[in-house]
Amino acid sequence: MRVLGIDPGTIITGFGVVEETGGRLALIDYGAVTCGRNDLFPDRLKRIYEGLCQVFEKHKPDHVAVEKVFYGKSVKAAIKIGEGRGVAILCAALSGVPLYEYSPTAIKKSVVGVGNAQKTQVQEMVKVILQLSKLPEPLDSSDALAIAICHCHRKKLDDLING
Amino acid sequence: MRVLGIDPGTIITGFGVVEETGGRLALIDYGAVTCGRNDLFPDRLKRIYEGLCQVFEKHKPDHVAVEKVFYGKSVKAAIKIGEGRGVAILCAALSGVPLYEYSPTAIKKSVVGVGNAQKTQVQEMVKVILQLSKLPEPLDSSDALAIAICHCHRKKLDDLING
Repeated sequence: MRVLGIDPGTIITGFGVVEETGGRLALIDYGAVTCGRNDLFPDRLKRIYEGLCQVFEKHKPDHVAVEKVFYGKSVKAAIKIGEGRGVAILCAALSGVPLYEYSPTAIKKSVVGVGNAQKTQVQEMVKVILQLSKLPEPLDSSDALAIAICHCHRKKLDDLING
Repeated sequence: MRVLGIDPGTIITGFGVVEETGGRLALIDYGAVTCGRNDLFPDRLKRIYEGLCQVFEKHKPDHVAVEKVFYGKSVKAAIKIGEGRGVAILCAALSGVPLYEYSPTAIKKSVVGVGNAQKTQVQEMVKVILQLSKLPEPLDSSDALAIAICHCHRKKLDDLING
């Protein structure tokens, strides 16, 4: 099972691809789609769309996982988060790949063991779990890998429970 | 100048196309992209994307106008608004059509004359301004037409000021 984790943002959208084979997780790819802070907002969404479409095409994931979002400094900020997120979810729908959502707490618990872990702790654990030689950067990419890992763990648990 | 107004939503996305020729406004088309409340959320975004792409292709607008959003019952609601809005803005960017944004107050002022007008007053005035034989429905479509009319009015004013 190949899982694409996405951490959407309107400046940096992190992505991470993980493959699970017989209970073992392996890194396939990770990176980020980066937009210029001074780019027009519609052009930023276009860049995210095109960047993510390329990732879907290249890696042909079986599942996509994103973080559930509950926060936002303000309504304006929450709408912006939604705008980037909408484009990421659209890419999954257009590729026909089923989407799964996990709360930030569930992701941190699944990767670090505690629900209130720091982003740098998540990054360290992602490095350990996927046996990487260096820390995955930027943090948006390590977060995306963590989301993919969380989905693999949860799917394994579901399979165990459901036989 | 042909203007497409969009009122994005994750259940109903209204659109309205207005043409301005020599200071006169004429209706070209209006309607709505409707999603089922029980449809999976990614499928709803896909439906909005495909519906709006068709509108862009059919009417080839010169400009697109959307409402600026500041509100949201909750952060969760604001993120959902953003998700639908992000898809609409993406469609504009992919079609290479410049996007303009107006506050709800500016739109109501431009169409009804007062910034705190009701949606049904906006609908009545859209009917009068575009000389329609009946009220444009649903309200999402009349709102979209109002956004397009507001853009035409503002553009005319800008042209007058800038010679």
